[in-house]
Amino acid sequence: MCGIVGISDHPEASKLAYLGLYALQHRGEEATGIATFDGTEVHIIKDRGLVVDVFDAEAIASLKGNIAVAHTRYSTTGSSNKKNCQPFLVTHRNRPVAVAHNGNLTNTEELYRKLEDEGSIFQTSMDSEIIVHLLAKTPNGDYKQWFVNVLAQLKGAFSVIFMVGDTLVGARDPHGFRPLVLGKLGDGYMLASETCALDLVRAEFVREIAPGEIVIIKGSKLESVFLPGADTAKRAQCVFENIYFARPDSDIFEDNIYLVRKRLGAQLAKEAPVKDADFVMPIPDSGVYAALGYAQETGLPYENGIIRNHYVGRTFIQPAQFMRDFRVRVKLNPIHDVIKGKKVVLIEDSIVRGTTSRSRVREVRRAGAKEIHMRISCPPIVSPCFYGIDFPSEEELVAYGKKIKEVADFIEVDTLEYLSLEGMLSVMKNGANFCHACFTGKYPVHIPSNKSKYLLEGVKKQA
Amino acid sequence: MCGIVGISDHPEASKLAYLGLYALQHRGEEATGIATFDGTEVHIIKDRGLVVDVFDAEAIASLKGNIAVAHTRYSTTGSSNKKNCQPFLVTHRNRPVAVAHNGNLTNTEELYRKLEDEGSIFQTSMDSEIIVHLLAKTPNGDYKQWFVNVLAQLKGAFSVIFMVGDTLVGARDPHGFRPLVLGKLGDGYMLASETCALDLVRAEFVREIAPGEIVIIKGSKLESVFLPGADTAKRAQCVFENIYFARPDSDIFEDNIYLVRKRLGAQLAKEAPVKDADFVMPIPDSGVYAALGYAQETGLPYENGIIRNHYVGRTFIQPAQFMRDFRVRVKLNPIHDVIKGKKVVLIEDSIVRGTTSRSRVREVRRAGAKEIHMRISCPPIVSPCFYGIDFPSEEELVAYGKKIKEVADFIEVDTLEYLSLEGMLSVMKNGANFCHACFTGKYPVHIPSNKSKYLLEGVKKQA
Amino acid sequence: MCGIVGISDHPEASKLAYLGLYALQHRGEEATGIATFDGTEVHIIKDRGLVVDVFDAEAIASLKGNIAVAHTRYSTTGSSNKKNCQPFLVTHRNRPVAVAHNGNLTNTEELYRKLEDEGSIFQTSMDSEIIVHLLAKTPNGDYKQWFVNVLAQLKGAFSVIFMVGDTLVGARDPHGFRPLVLGKLGDGYMLASETCALDLVRAEFVREIAPGEIVIIKGSKLESVFLPGADTAKRAQCVFENIYFARPDSDIFEDNIYLVRKRLGAQLAKEAPVKDADFVMPIPDSGVYAALGYAQETGLPYENGIIRNHYVGRTFIQPAQFMRDFRVRVKLNPIHDVIKGKKVVLIEDSIVRGTTSRSRVREVRRAGAKEIHMRISCPPIVSPCFYGIDFPSEEELVAYGKKIKEVADFIEVDTLEYLSLEGMLSVMKNGANFCHACFTGKYPVHIPSNKSKYLLEGVKKQA
Amino acid sequence: MCGIVGISDHPEASKLAYLGLYALQHRGEEATGIATFDGTEVHIIKDRGLVVDVFDAEAIASLKGNIAVAHTRYSTTGSSNKKNCQPFLVTHRNRPVAVAHNGNLTNTEELYRKLEDEGSIFQTSMDSEIIVHLLAKTPNGDYKQWFVNVLAQLKGAFSVIFMVGDTLVGARDPHGFRPLVLGKLGDGYMLASETCALDLVRAEFVREIAPGEIVIIKGSKLESVFLPGADTAKRAQCVFENIYFARPDSDIFEDNIYLVRKRLGAQLAKEAPVKDADFVMPIPDSGVYAALGYAQETGLPYENGIIRNHYVGRTFIQPAQFMRDFRVRVKLNPIHDVIKGKKVVLIEDSIVRGTTSRSRVREVRRAGAKEIHMRISCPPIVSPCFYGIDFPSEEELVAYGKKIKEVADFIEVDTLEYLSLEGMLSVMKNGANFCHACFTGKYPVHIPSNKSKYLLEGVKKQA
Repeated sequence: MCGIVGISDHPEASKLAYLGLYALQHRGEEATGIATFDGTEVHIIKDRGLVVDVFDAEAIASLKGNIAVAHTRYSTTGSSNKKNCQPFLVTHRNRPVAVAHNGNLTNTEELYRKLEDEGSIFQTSMDSEIIVHLLAKTPNGDYKQWFVNVLAQLKGAFSVIFMVGDTLVGARDPHGFRPLVLGKLGDGYMLASETCALDLVRAEFVREIAPGEIVIIKGSKLESVFLPGADTAKRAQCVFENIYFARPDSDIFEDNIYLVRKRLGAQLAKEAPVKDADFVMPIPDSGVYAALGYAQETGLPYENGIIRNHYVGRTFIQPAQFMRDFRVRVKLNPIHDVIKGKKVVLIEDSIVRGTTSRSRVREVRRAGAKEIHMRISCPPIVSPCFYGIDFPSEEELVAYGKKIKEVADFIEVDTLEYLSLEGMLSVMKNGANFCHACFTGKYPVHIPSNKSKYLLEGVKKQA
Repeated sequence: MCGIVGISDHPEASKLAYLGLYALQHRGEEATGIATFDGTEVHIIKDRGLVVDVFDAEAIASLKGNIAVAHTRYSTTGSSNKKNCQPFLVTHRNRPVAVAHNGNLTNTEELYRKLEDEGSIFQTSMDSEIIVHLLAKTPNGDYKQWFVNVLAQLKGAFSVIFMVGDTLVGARDPHGFRPLVLGKLGDGYMLASETCALDLVRAEFVREIAPGEIVIIKGSKLESVFLPGADTAKRAQCVFENIYFARPDSDIFEDNIYLVRKRLGAQLAKEAPVKDADFVMPIPDSGVYAALGYAQETGLPYENGIIRNHYVGRTFIQPAQFMRDFRVRVKLNPIHDVIKGKKVVLIEDSIVRGTTSRSRVREVRRAGAKEIHMRISCPPIVSPCFYGIDFPSEEELVAYGKKIKEVADFIEVDTLEYLSLEGMLSVMKNGANFCHACFTGKYPVHIPSNKSKYLLEGVKKQA
Repeated sequence: MCGIVGISDHPEASKLAYLGLYALQHRGEEATGIATFDGTEVHIIKDRGLVVDVFDAEAIASLKGNIAVAHTRYSTTGSSNKKNCQPFLVTHRNRPVAVAHNGNLTNTEELYRKLEDEGSIFQTSMDSEIIVHLLAKTPNGDYKQWFVNVLAQLKGAFSVIFMVGDTLVGARDPHGFRPLVLGKLGDGYMLASETCALDLVRAEFVREIAPGEIVIIKGSKLESVFLPGADTAKRAQCVFENIYFARPDSDIFEDNIYLVRKRLGAQLAKEAPVKDADFVMPIPDSGVYAALGYAQETGLPYENGIIRNHYVGRTFIQPAQFMRDFRVRVKLNPIHDVIKGKKVVLIEDSIVRGTTSRSRVREVRRAGAKEIHMRISCPPIVSPCFYGIDFPSEEELVAYGKKIKEVADFIEVDTLEYLSLEGMLSVMKNGANFCHACFTGKYPVHIPSNKSKYLLEGVKKQA
Repeated sequence: MCGIVGISDHPEASKLAYLGLYALQHRGEEATGIATFDGTEVHIIKDRGLVVDVFDAEAIASLKGNIAVAHTRYSTTGSSNKKNCQPFLVTHRNRPVAVAHNGNLTNTEELYRKLEDEGSIFQTSMDSEIIVHLLAKTPNGDYKQWFVNVLAQLKGAFSVIFMVGDTLVGARDPHGFRPLVLGKLGDGYMLASETCALDLVRAEFVREIAPGEIVIIKGSKLESVFLPGADTAKRAQCVFENIYFARPDSDIFEDNIYLVRKRLGAQLAKEAPVKDADFVMPIPDSGVYAALGYAQETGLPYENGIIRNHYVGRTFIQPAQFMRDFRVRVKLNPIHDVIKGKKVVLIEDSIVRGTTSRSRVREVRRAGAKEIHMRISCPPIVSPCFYGIDFPSEEELVAYGKKIKEVADFIEVDTLEYLSLEGMLSVMKNGANFCHACFTGKYPVHIPSNKSKYLLEGVKKQA
């Protein structure tokens, strides 16, 4: 996962890009970058680290120009190289081209091999570099046609922002996997993954970029064009953005995330109540909103009985090995005086491998809970994602091939219930427009072969 | 404010000290340090920064020995010098002496001048160095007598831990301003400011160090001695530890902080209800526990309608000037879809200068709140603290010399109510044992002159 | 100017490359790099700075493999970017290609434009990247044919070393502008700019690479092929290597540099004696060898009357502005007690702008010299170099368009004499084989236009 | 060894101190520091590293004030701690006291123990800190009396500069072991170890500070006072300053170093000629001046046949282990074409352990020398120095207990001759005023016990 931001026609483009990244930090903590263009020179700063670590006031001041493109990247295994930070920037025929990409292409391997056979030299293993080489190889007189010709060659999930000289371009794949919103900011425009980025800089929310749409923004002028087949492609919005990934104060996919999560919790309360429980308690912070919905639906008291240490993760220093043993307890400390002797409804947004959940359950048990009834605000995750969410392979997913009772035993709770697929989609706005492959294995875009995800990694690594 | 930790007779003393500091990070974010002694050599690492920034695995491994003393320091104006980090360590007559101090002495100036006149050369402006010079000047055959002789010369607030060669010494001033707890850890002992530090390393809580008590721990042997007058001194536990400073999962002053804060909220609900409110909402995170108490007492719904950005403050890089304008919004984002058109009870733990509260109120108003009724879980703060809490001078305290209605107008709320002094003390365990000078101006230990706090700073600065 | 090194088939390839660079440090102080290949992974470290600054023991140990290519770069204006350090390395079709280049191509602009029009994306503005793109575009089944096809497209000066997977390739342009020598080292081979690099690692000197020759070394097997026209091309060895640039303990162009410089000094004594001089004194260190030749030819005493401060320049820290005023005196201090009242023959290897010489002359005068007679061991420099020596433009050359008497007045000496062109060439081995364009303006390889040197810089800069 | 500088009453005190250190860099490469006082605040920067590494333009600009004291330190085993850099600075009774010391006290242990017993707390193991504690303990109304009282307690070698508030104080022990010179610079004064520091900033040389003299400089006013016994104390100027340590362009001990070394070489030629030699060649750079004297006396040609690599040592990066094997060759490369088949007179200033000389001799032999006749411009070194020169213990001195023929065999030369003690002293100005304990074991100041040097180190280390 990643967060992306674009700014056009604003005298403080780099500052706004910085604030936008700040608001989207939850979408990627590993690396970040901003590129700007001042009409003469292109400027770029990117590095591994949080937004606050990579940029200081001097850095922001040095990123001159009215146009900016920016990126923050989620940790993905292996590619911890600084070279792999985005935006990816080249200068071609005296014109800077920078790209920030959120999503995952499914035909990376095919495109990479074809380009290298024709003599292209790659610097990185990123989807965004492939897109840039396609741009360099494609005639580029008319921007609309140029971008349609290039982006039509891509398959899979992409919400992408380009800075080509003084022109900002935003695009979303025809299925609309990842969000991308448009805001107005003085005379110019702002593109961002989520509305919380617009809120922070007080940009006015205009609309979401439509699936298959390309917007070409030069100064304060915006033009729109659609990829072929954009109107007929199956909509496939990522439901996991709503469940876990997006910020609760964002509006995406035409809904508010805080409210949709409270509705998930309320629906969960209807489907899976707990009799005579003493109170409802979330695993903070991701379970908080569903827990509030659950508590309000049932009338049970809501307690914040697990204290989160806000200092966890505030560093790039590799934690000492011995810290791993303390990991769960360092981050979350259940309060004995609140929990002891109680029958607790414990709310979590989702379970992936199950090991973290089990460690947390054990800590709650050690704090003296009499009974722990866990409730999950989505269905069991049983399939990996090829469109940008970093789930592990099937074998590592705790719910894959297991009955719910077996999962309950594994994570050591008294009872465990998941929200149903139908229940989940029923509280979404336009439930039919969502991709739910991680719960059902029904992939809306063809995956080249059963293991292609890993093959692609192999190709890239050698490069 | 500061957090302090001591470890005796444990093969992984530095690791445990590190974890203890980690748990006490909220008591001081500016600087931190650990000193250990391996029987031959003393080791120390200290620097400005968070615990996770200052120490990595290699650093912890280099801090060898069975005994450790550790410190984390709150930001105080001016003294941003690395030299001023604690523990303060010297070697005297081939024996290492390290000190970590929490609190504020009130006779610093007098002691400093006397020592310098006798030829002592000071390296820093810290209370802890003064204590070390007193130790160097005092005959030290019998440890009990030595420490009684030295600590009896100190006035004011001190919870302090010493490492003198292979002996760990902990002490608390006779009034008991600051907490200090004792735990058992295998064969050895652990001293710490709060029990959350014991929890993290699974040390067993033994008891609090008593006001006026000195414990001398050599290996697994613990001896106790009391300062003259310890039994008759007025108890003066800092009530602000309970209201704001200590972690909700700690037990200090014989009470659990989460529960005491919920009781403050419930008492506040009784004293200052709001009719026909739509819901109760805290300023996160400090107002959360009182808000839960208020909501449960009144039956109103509890909403987490303000989203806290967890990435704020995760850096040492000086934030850009322009970020200050965005400070409040960057940290806390009220959700329009939750708040719009609602009559809100907004809970905060305390108000100091009022400017931060006003900024937050304005953001809630901008999110569409119809009415904002603010409720504070302590009385108005009207006097500075000379015992370790970093309040500003009277003139900067918003409630000083103002009626509550005037404060309400200043922070732009529809109504404002504070908890009463009596109400506050009524829900404390042994309410009479608390210092409440910040609410009443009744200082339990004499302050040399009206402005002595600032005079002392002057003396130290020149040094 | 640059120094280059290649190592094949030696288990300590990176160490030997490091030592080779160390010996060639005088050929370039600005930046340095080493690339190695261990059969599976390619390793590279490069950065701005001296060899001792860029590499430490850990760095050298991390550069694994039996094959290495290495580079050290002279400071050239503008391009102080880390990206512009060599070796230039890419991976193409899973095979690493690294290049280290000494010299200057004269058809850079033409090649760059053609490649970009075909869709190549450039990362830098270096000649060496252009060569790599040509390699990527050219069929590469047979290495001999591949390199002949690629290198035949280059015009100008190039001594170049490639590492292509496990194959080391060395080549010299048909005019032989820059030196390149071959050594034997155990089972493998070593390529280097000068023999002093072979001496340091005790490699056996085999021979110089011939003008127009390409050697292809795989393991311990060496094959040789020649560029078309290699046998008929005009030889154009850089005479300035002999006068100033190469190390006195190197043998290049079939001669020893120390001895050739002494011969220059002796010839200068014959052509331009000074009557009744008290002693001969060099500007250290570059004038030392000619001064010894001059003194021995004339029988005058030789004195080291100017002390060189060996600490000058030992840092990357930008010297303070005020240091510039002290620059000459900081570096060289004439000794009053030696010079006072004396008639001095002052020997310098060459004069470029004349301002440095003037500053030094003034210091010698201030030390009390009665008369200063300057003698230069080469003719007046009047034309820029397009083949790799960083002379300024004609207007900045002090001798351009001036009579010798005018130059003497400018640098404030009593008399000034230069060595004659004929005299200079007469003491060289095979004097007819040298390029002397800097003294005569007769360029052996066509320069596209009068100002092409600066146009090319323009093209590169934009890229 | 160390270099020290003091500046009084000059608006650019830190710049001049910096330049002074620059000129004295040869006296100590390990660490350096400058302290200044601007009337209100004291400023100090000190660290390990060369002068050019520790200070940049910004650093110098931050060192405000009209008065400065500065230091550069020779590498001494063990004490590589940053804390041990000088100047040593404290603030006592609101007055800054900074000290820079060159030399070695012989009663360190006694003073240290006494002070600690009285309650002084030491930060370092430096002689200069001991002096500061004595200053703090001594009544200080009248500066002349104060410094006489304190410095009279010191035994051994000290040339020392103090900055006490706005007063600069310089002093030299009554024996005059180490040099200290006084210069005039505008209205103010400059103190420095050698005159080359005055030359660089164009300060006018006034005179040397006399043995036993204390000069107290406040602004442009200078007062002088003498230690008791200054007039009767045995003069003991360090002869090794003349032979090796001081810069050839300095005048100290009333002589010019370049000329004194040429006289040593000429005297050596008289005492130890070599028949039918081809030429005279120095080990650069230390042997250069004696070699010139030797060549001129004998009429033999002088050759610079060993090339010194000027990049050696230009870094703080620990050289790789493998570099040690290449150490000699990396630094000095004898030229085969010059040396082959020749009978060489090889001049060195001195021999300490003999291992370095042997390595160099072997390289000259490998370059083809037919015969090597080594001549040394001082007598055999047979005793350690307790006054500041870092010689090893007797057992490690190659000449200790050996006949000259045995030393010749050890270093593998055909013949070896040393200059005689009488010959050496005969060419010095006032030869009777020099300490020659390293050649004779006659120590002018009592050494507490046979091994006291090492005992003292022991005491300091524990501290």
